[in-house]
Amino acid sequence: MEYFLAQVGIAVFAVSGVLSAVRQRLDIFSIVVVGLLTAIGGGTLRDLILNVPVFWIEDLTGFWVAVGASFMTFVGIRFILKLPLRLLAYLDAVGIALFSVQAIDKTLALGHPAAVAIVMGLITSIAGGIARDVVTHRPTMLLSRELYATPILLGAMLYVLLSPYPGSRPVAMAAIFTIRAAAIRWQLFLPLRLTLQVDIDDTP
Amino acid sequence: MEYFLAQVGIAVFAVSGVLSAVRQRLDIFSIVVVGLLTAIGGGTLRDLILNVPVFWIEDLTGFWVAVGASFMTFVGIRFILKLPLRLLAYLDAVGIALFSVQAIDKTLALGHPAAVAIVMGLITSIAGGIARDVVTHRPTMLLSRELYATPILLGAMLYVLLSPYPGSRPVAMAAIFTIRAAAIRWQLFLPLRLTLQVDIDDTP
Amino acid sequence: MEYFLAQVGIAVFAVSGVLSAVRQRLDIFSIVVVGLLTAIGGGTLRDLILNVPVFWIEDLTGFWVAVGASFMTFVGIRFILKLPLRLLAYLDAVGIALFSVQAIDKTLALGHPAAVAIVMGLITSIAGGIARDVVTHRPTMLLSRELYATPILLGAMLYVLLSPYPGSRPVAMAAIFTIRAAAIRWQLFLPLRLTLQVDIDDTP
Repeated sequence: MEYFLAQVGIAVFAVSGVLSAVRQRLDIFSIVVVGLLTAIGGGTLRDLILNVPVFWIEDLTGFWVAVGASFMTFVGIRFILKLPLRLLAYLDAVGIALFSVQAIDKTLALGHPAAVAIVMGLITSIAGGIARDVVTHRPTMLLSRELYATPILLGAMLYVLLSPYPGSRPVAMAAIFTIRAAAIRWQLFLPLRLTLQVDIDDTP
Repeated sequence: MEYFLAQVGIAVFAVSGVLSAVRQRLDIFSIVVVGLLTAIGGGTLRDLILNVPVFWIEDLTGFWVAVGASFMTFVGIRFILKLPLRLLAYLDAVGIALFSVQAIDKTLALGHPAAVAIVMGLITSIAGGIARDVVTHRPTMLLSRELYATPILLGAMLYVLLSPYPGSRPVAMAAIFTIRAAAIRWQLFLPLRLTLQVDIDDTP
Repeated sequence: MEYFLAQVGIAVFAVSGVLSAVRQRLDIFSIVVVGLLTAIGGGTLRDLILNVPVFWIEDLTGFWVAVGASFMTFVGIRFILKLPLRLLAYLDAVGIALFSVQAIDKTLALGHPAAVAIVMGLITSIAGGIARDVVTHRPTMLLSRELYATPILLGAMLYVLLSPYPGSRPVAMAAIFTIRAAAIRWQLFLPLRLTLQVDIDDTP
């Protein structure tokens, strides 16, 4: 079940990766690269930093799912663009909930402390999207006010806090999904006082 | 012979890396960094993902060849810019043919499946150029319609298919070079129907 | 003492990372990511290439120092922006002097040759800042004429040359700091003849 959900997460990430670059008039090769980067880039960086074998080298399923989902997005782009965009955003929210919790489990199982696990949850969920934006020459999500990483951070901290108790896993995943879905539904941002707004003439 | 050809490939990649950033008015230090990134960046990422020692740490020859070629490009820039640009593009095509096949051999020798080997062939040949464009703040080749990765992909698949037969290596290298050279000579692109062109008002 | 200085270097790098992105109106999460990337990104890439455990996974002190320094920069931004900018630039110069020499020591201790050690000194000091500029969509220091990497390169070569003699460490650190401080104080650039300036109509 969880293995299946992980593949769904990878497919959704690939689709949302391709869609986010849809204005860039990419050819089919670039589309598959962009889909792959979004879907497996974060987990690749996590595994490199953790010094464990990169997950898609060990088991190519995720790789093929990402290639297939990118290709099908290309083929069915006119159909997909007719879907409500929010549907895809909600599916993406399922993906980050799953990816974060899985990355935390993997990191804790290697004996690393909770802080490292939370960082790995974040890296797995957001590094792929950042790499995609960098190679397609677009502003990354770090420059956006969209509430994307904060739900992951809150849910990851909750997961680590609750980990001695049974049921911590679904609770953490539900927390990430719910906060992110609320951000999508009501277009939530971090309050302005948590944003650096300084009018300056000269910076180093 | 092949070791020598590999060094030629690294040198050509360094030269083409420096030339592609020639409008950016870089100083000599940045030029060497850009040449190095282009020439050894792809192989570095391949080795990190394969979890083997990075090739230029093991044997510094490639590193020095890239530094030397970058430096000589700086010194002889006026002479090099008088050469026909296509000559350099053809040399670069020799480089990608060689790099791809070597990366596939290295990956297969580690016991990985053919799909991983093909991906490593692509990463070795294109990741360095993408990193160069990212750090020099230029659009990457993923945004270009130039037929660059497709010849590598076709040649790599051919190499894997033919691998049980003798002579597969020179055939695959010739295929990559020929398709790429044809793309340079007749300015080939992927057909428009393989390009994502959607007129949209709002994307996620 | 040195361990303490290393933490000061990380804190200063985080502060200067946040300040360099101060115009971008980042929220608190992005600010901490940017501070972290600047402060520990270079050392992370060094450790990945050297194939040793990433330093902040082994000992989280540096990670927390970077998070704390980024957070305090956010909280105290109005106070920090009243400080003379040169003060921060000089502190940053202390950081690069220390980081470079430590990276060289670490690399030589692993049995690598001097050239690899010098490259690792450079990577540790500049890769974090380059990554920060890439994810915040700004031109990287490779495009700037600022004399930043050259002091590190000269000091690193001096350190390797002097390494058989006692006192080589403080001498090399002083050299890096002094050349960089002179570049800040008198706004030194590499001479124009060491910059690639070609007027061209078409590049590959």
